[in-house]
Amino acid sequence: MYYSKLFGKTTKTAPRGAKLASHKLLYRGGFIRQSAAGYYYFLPLGWRVHQKIEELIRQEMNQAGAQEMLSPTLHPIELWQETNRTSSAAFELMTVKSRTGAKFALGGTAEEMFVDLVRRLNLSYRDLPFNVYQFSTKFRDELRSRGGLLRVREFIMKDAYSFDQSHEEFEKEYQKMKQVYQTIFAKLDLTTLVAEADSGYIGGDYCHEFIYPTPVGEDEVFVCGGCGYQANKEKAEFVRENKNPNEEIKPFEIIDQPEWVETMNDNIKHYGQPLWRYLKNVVYKDDQGRLIIASLRGDQEVNETKLKRVLGVDSLIPAEDKDLESLGTRHGWVHSWDHEEVVYVGDLGLKSVKNFIGGYKEKTTDSANVNYGRDFKYQILADIVSAHEGATCPRCRKGQLKRQIGIEVGHIFQLGHHYTKLMSGANFVDENGKDKPFYMGCYGIGLGRTMATVVEAHHDEEGIIWPRAIAPFQAHLVALGKNQTKAEKIYQKLTAEGLEVLYDDRDKVLAGAKFADADLIGIPIRLVISDKTEDKIEWKERDRKKTELLQYDEVVERLAKIFGLPGE
Amino acid sequence: MYYSKLFGKTTKTAPRGAKLASHKLLYRGGFIRQSAAGYYYFLPLGWRVHQKIEELIRQEMNQAGAQEMLSPTLHPIELWQETNRTSSAAFELMTVKSRTGAKFALGGTAEEMFVDLVRRLNLSYRDLPFNVYQFSTKFRDELRSRGGLLRVREFIMKDAYSFDQSHEEFEKEYQKMKQVYQTIFAKLDLTTLVAEADSGYIGGDYCHEFIYPTPVGEDEVFVCGGCGYQANKEKAEFVRENKNPNEEIKPFEIIDQPEWVETMNDNIKHYGQPLWRYLKNVVYKDDQGRLIIASLRGDQEVNETKLKRVLGVDSLIPAEDKDLESLGTRHGWVHSWDHEEVVYVGDLGLKSVKNFIGGYKEKTTDSANVNYGRDFKYQILADIVSAHEGATCPRCRKGQLKRQIGIEVGHIFQLGHHYTKLMSGANFVDENGKDKPFYMGCYGIGLGRTMATVVEAHHDEEGIIWPRAIAPFQAHLVALGKNQTKAEKIYQKLTAEGLEVLYDDRDKVLAGAKFADADLIGIPIRLVISDKTEDKIEWKERDRKKTELLQYDEVVERLAKIFGLPGE
Repeated sequence: MYYSKLFGKTTKTAPRGAKLASHKLLYRGGFIRQSAAGYYYFLPLGWRVHQKIEELIRQEMNQAGAQEMLSPTLHPIELWQETNRTSSAAFELMTVKSRTGAKFALGGTAEEMFVDLVRRLNLSYRDLPFNVYQFSTKFRDELRSRGGLLRVREFIMKDAYSFDQSHEEFEKEYQKMKQVYQTIFAKLDLTTLVAEADSGYIGGDYCHEFIYPTPVGEDEVFVCGGCGYQANKEKAEFVRENKNPNEEIKPFEIIDQPEWVETMNDNIKHYGQPLWRYLKNVVYKDDQGRLIIASLRGDQEVNETKLKRVLGVDSLIPAEDKDLESLGTRHGWVHSWDHEEVVYVGDLGLKSVKNFIGGYKEKTTDSANVNYGRDFKYQILADIVSAHEGATCPRCRKGQLKRQIGIEVGHIFQLGHHYTKLMSGANFVDENGKDKPFYMGCYGIGLGRTMATVVEAHHDEEGIIWPRAIAPFQAHLVALGKNQTKAEKIYQKLTAEGLEVLYDDRDKVLAGAKFADADLIGIPIRLVISDKTEDKIEWKERDRKKTELLQYDEVVERLAKIFGLPGE
Repeated sequence: MYYSKLFGKTTKTAPRGAKLASHKLLYRGGFIRQSAAGYYYFLPLGWRVHQKIEELIRQEMNQAGAQEMLSPTLHPIELWQETNRTSSAAFELMTVKSRTGAKFALGGTAEEMFVDLVRRLNLSYRDLPFNVYQFSTKFRDELRSRGGLLRVREFIMKDAYSFDQSHEEFEKEYQKMKQVYQTIFAKLDLTTLVAEADSGYIGGDYCHEFIYPTPVGEDEVFVCGGCGYQANKEKAEFVRENKNPNEEIKPFEIIDQPEWVETMNDNIKHYGQPLWRYLKNVVYKDDQGRLIIASLRGDQEVNETKLKRVLGVDSLIPAEDKDLESLGTRHGWVHSWDHEEVVYVGDLGLKSVKNFIGGYKEKTTDSANVNYGRDFKYQILADIVSAHEGATCPRCRKGQLKRQIGIEVGHIFQLGHHYTKLMSGANFVDENGKDKPFYMGCYGIGLGRTMATVVEAHHDEEGIIWPRAIAPFQAHLVALGKNQTKAEKIYQKLTAEGLEVLYDDRDKVLAGAKFADADLIGIPIRLVISDKTEDKIEWKERDRKKTELLQYDEVVERLAKIFGLPGE
């Protein structure tokens, strides 16, 4: 490719307000351009990288026996209604109506579509197992997009769906896919965490996120330095250490408390006791209008994902003043017992403190020496708070959890019978002639986000440093001075060998500018033809400082060794 | 690929009501399945063919210097408003609203998107020309879909957009693309007509459709047997022969006519004269509510596409009784002159007949010896009727037009400045530092329709006969009897050579059934391992009856010769 003819060139300035390196460099390098917020064009250079990522994933999926196909991106809304996802995923679901009156969801994920296809094929155990996948456009009506490709509203996703006879058979596929994902990210030079996660509206009992650790990420993962336990914030469990095990349980008391004491900070000011000593109540409203009181230790925070899962609801919003009024109370006065027509949910940590302060505040009184089990008790006591840095690992019960920030680049889910029981007829005939629901899993990678994450992982001050497996071109040939004719010949020879070369053939552009562009674009090998190189070629690798003068044959040999030649 | 593991198998019965061979065979062969009407899944076998068509097109486009990229499928509606296409394309445009209130069109074609990208790049003449293309999902809210892939509501299209400095520069690209399309269709074994066509809501001055002639098509083309002129029905011109050049022009008369004479048939009954002798008036209403009277010879039919283009309106509907009443007239009585507040448009053929009957019917009178120019005259006289079989060619003015039916598989458009003048700032800086609008063209191929058309063109009673360039696999290896072990070895060897083999490894399936499946699926070469083949392999080509016994090496040699081996 001649740089002079390339559609989409480098530029010196990044979009105003761009903060992420991937956003700035992919823009400046001429890889992407924004349409509306969260919608991106891939320019030819960016699309080459995207295609290489696609092909790399395809090879690994095929190798693992998965079969590529394609489902429509417009999904009949009736299918999403069958699985109640029009409500559970409603917040990011876009829908469209045809002029014949049919209603469709713009696919953000395609479980229903694959189940609907499979259930119409009348399969038997002989047809199982199989894993089908696609690269297709996905839509997510995100409230906020981020600059660049990290969080967008339209993107291409590799989504795979496995169908098995049983949990045992499925687990083999799940482990295989976990391995495939690790291979894929290794080839992309991304070292990822594999964290247990919450399935959200996808459903199922367990799932794993592949997280590339970087401070610019939006996902939090807790990792045990001891046993290697990894789980994201929504899922991470931890051991609730007893804070005051040796303290004697004292008699329940009603004590005087000034009216101004409402918040945790007020409590500290008033009593001078540490946060864990206070009982905290947080009030929510669920999607059916029920009021929920979450009761927990003062030093911990409600984890809304965990709370939703415990309650089996799709959404929770903080209660408003008028909701508290309907309970005859107000902020800071909420009681840990005696409110009627609310659902109380307590965190496991309520058992780890003796003699709480609080739990039943009135105008000028509060309660003291409150003990869970003796003074109040809930029907639901569960893990509803977030883990924290330094917490004890729930698995080995020894190591401490460390908090890491990262980008989710892949997600694999056990779905079990979640969809195949909600969607009627999603059965196969087993060996005894009986109908059984398929046992499912699903496996996703967003390609654009993966591309941006690679840039976050591999760049320097000057630009991108593409991993060899997905570089847009293998070599960036630069002609300096009046050496276009010589360079042109080398360009022709290299491309005839089947090598992928971007050739900077521009006239009247200074060496410095050409080198800056090469560094910005980030192709692994830079080759220079100048007055100084005589009958040789200057070789420089993007991630090293050293330059070497090589014969043409040596250049080809090295390139072939690094990238392979077609047909080898 | 093991047939036993292939997701999506052959089936004996086609969907109820399926009429088209491509629909029946692609369904029965396990290539496609329907989701909603007009929305299709591509099963692994079908997706392999689709990918091969994509790769074939990609190679030719790249070869011609076009650059692949990708634009979002959701288009900000403001862009379609800029070009007035929210009204001109409204009938098949689907729109969607995000929860932040942004409105998008689901892309059916992407002119605005590419212009919007290009105008933000601040390009100069040095950056021109270029041609960018994509394979992307397109949406068309068709009122009626057809069975199978011929007319669907969602499909993948290769759409290309060229940007040039001038008409002259553009014409070179247009001719190159015409050639590229001919190469593509030739490689797909589709011999196409290249017909002048109407641009419809795409805009521009001229365009060409690539039509594969087949009676199952929906497009009509007129072809001159003499000079080779080809144009579709919406566009085809023709010479209006003078019907009675030697007749003397007679004085205008009002004549008696019974009240029952209203239609052309009534006229024939009453006067016994041929159709061309009568003046015909057809009344339409346009999108602004204006009434239009199209005036033409009785033996011709209004061509609404031509009429719309002459009037510069997006839609026309037949006038209703109440519209005629508002003119003080009724069906069969409409006058060729004197109606007020209507737009009269006459066809060129009005000049080709002397002494028309009709044009001013009252209750019991009509007019006779009506002559255009003397008795009435229009501000707009244009080509507004359809050509017909046997009409004289407008180009060579000698040959006769023949009517052919076919499927449109490709369409290339001159767009000129249509979009770049409607969209502000769509300019480049020319050599003199002046802003000039880009001169554009666009070029589309629908991949699914192309796939179905190939099947319409290449099948027999037993199934599909895939052209070698896009067959899902190169060889279909069939193990008969107890020869799985022997066949398995050959399968392993062939795939290790890099050949693409579908291996029918099924146990307990009879030879007849396996052969029927092979014929249905339509892979070019069938290889059989049976008790009879001993140490050889039976070779049969899908489109021939002959079978041959070959050594393994001969099989590989022939396959390599036909398909090439990777890296050769």
